[in-house]
Amino acid sequence: MTKQLVFGHQSPDTDAVVAAKAFSYLQNKLGFDTEAVALGSLSEETKFVLDYFNEPEPRIIETAKNEVESVMLVDHNEFQQSVSDIADLVVTDVVDHHRIANFTTNMPLNFRSEAVGCSSTVIWKMFNENGIEIPANIAGLMMSAIISDTLLFKSPTTTPVDVEATKALSKISNTDYNVYGLDMLKAGTNLSSKTEEELINGDAKSFDMAGKTVRVAQVNTVDLEEVFNREAALVSAIEADSKTNNYDLFLLLVTNILDSDSELLVVGEPKEMVEKAFNKKLVDDKLSLPGVVSRKKQVVPQLQTVFEA
Amino acid sequence: MTKQLVFGHQSPDTDAVVAAKAFSYLQNKLGFDTEAVALGSLSEETKFVLDYFNEPEPRIIETAKNEVESVMLVDHNEFQQSVSDIADLVVTDVVDHHRIANFTTNMPLNFRSEAVGCSSTVIWKMFNENGIEIPANIAGLMMSAIISDTLLFKSPTTTPVDVEATKALSKISNTDYNVYGLDMLKAGTNLSSKTEEELINGDAKSFDMAGKTVRVAQVNTVDLEEVFNREAALVSAIEADSKTNNYDLFLLLVTNILDSDSELLVVGEPKEMVEKAFNKKLVDDKLSLPGVVSRKKQVVPQLQTVFEA
Repeated sequence: MTKQLVFGHQSPDTDAVVAAKAFSYLQNKLGFDTEAVALGSLSEETKFVLDYFNEPEPRIIETAKNEVESVMLVDHNEFQQSVSDIADLVVTDVVDHHRIANFTTNMPLNFRSEAVGCSSTVIWKMFNENGIEIPANIAGLMMSAIISDTLLFKSPTTTPVDVEATKALSKISNTDYNVYGLDMLKAGTNLSSKTEEELINGDAKSFDMAGKTVRVAQVNTVDLEEVFNREAALVSAIEADSKTNNYDLFLLLVTNILDSDSELLVVGEPKEMVEKAFNKKLVDDKLSLPGVVSRKKQVVPQLQTVFEA
Repeated sequence: MTKQLVFGHQSPDTDAVVAAKAFSYLQNKLGFDTEAVALGSLSEETKFVLDYFNEPEPRIIETAKNEVESVMLVDHNEFQQSVSDIADLVVTDVVDHHRIANFTTNMPLNFRSEAVGCSSTVIWKMFNENGIEIPANIAGLMMSAIISDTLLFKSPTTTPVDVEATKALSKISNTDYNVYGLDMLKAGTNLSSKTEEELINGDAKSFDMAGKTVRVAQVNTVDLEEVFNREAALVSAIEADSKTNNYDLFLLLVTNILDSDSELLVVGEPKEMVEKAFNKKLVDDKLSLPGVVSRKKQVVPQLQTVFEA
């Protein structure tokens, strides 16, 4: 069996890292030879999770073709969010819970995407379908990913299956998901030690929208003001980043995870698309978005729709 | 619950028609309101199958947006193989076993594709995963689709899961899959009553390859000579069809299902891509392809690779 690499998207969040670990474990049990790796440095939240469940940090790779012929993707499918040389690799498996776009193969493959809150929820189903037991620490990682992606079920992306999976994984890992979950989320919001570059790249994804490259970054916090006290420096960092990477429009979604509201900071053009998407005027290049916590469900589709209109 | 339509690809083969019926049945059991329809007239083989298992022919549609907002696709994902107004519809579910290309959504969805021989095999797994019983006649349809797609397990696309599914469905439908399967395949090869237009469109798919539109049609037979006696008329029909629909290159794969060989007839340009793909010179615009029976696995990827080189 030829070795394969398994990885989540660039700027990995907790699900991108631990879904790779869980899926790699499952595939190895099914007879494949895989290694979970990551496409970037880990967030504070992910480090907290791996430390808590005594799991080593994955190796970080820049390219894959120098090591393997074929790969498995988790928590993403769009090529621009994947490893830099994805077009030269054979993708044999995908597990995801996002929209599908900019993904193409020459050969049939195993592609499993479900409209649920977290890739680890889908992987939990696959463990069950294949009758493979989930070790306690892997269960803890998967539970953490679901809590992270659904903000402890506050995100509108949450489905009953995510809640069911969390409860089952909580039992296997012997961890109270409410107590642990809040600790974990707070661990991810220690922003004071981070540079502006780290804040805008920690959890950021690029999207092609009608020919424009739109970058949407998200920062979770328990104090919006703490972030916006640094607004001028954030804008400078975003402008520099956009210039280097040719982003047309950069959106920084700052989400208060305690009251489930967000403030959106917009840099670049066309800004009017953002106003159209949310039917609201920008004030000092910012928009208040009460109740918005999900980039995937409450920001990207709305933008895509107005860009394609 | 808003009504949804479920359908397979244009120029439907048996799997496209019966996977739609089986998946619609499953979704309705899961609480959705769906109707299986078809995107074109049925083949002789499919008529034989529906007749044998006392199942009505599906309604044939040209567009879907005039009836529904959202749809479920089976046995295809590429938009150019789907309903004409697919870009205006929301796709909520896909079950497939082909490569993924030219497929894009704005929202997350349920997308299940596996590298197995038939969509109905994947749907058989989904029935089991959801604990839904398969009625005898639906089981007969699904078994027929697997036999059709795998040419009774002779195609290299066949996997152990396809064989396992066929045996299970054979038991549920109380039908000997070997005896029935050969009758069914032969019923699909009665070519004498068909016009050239019917032969080249009965099971045909279009592919975008590096900007060229490549059409690959397949005809199953028990006698290659019977087909090639009509070669001049077939070429005329292909030329007319290519002109009307702007196909650059048209390949007619004529497959002898008894000895598992094919003869390929090539019309249009660039013909040298076909020679490169199979590393063989065309003789009178034809290529002998011993052992080739699968368009999906033994023709399309090989072409795609040389077009993209």
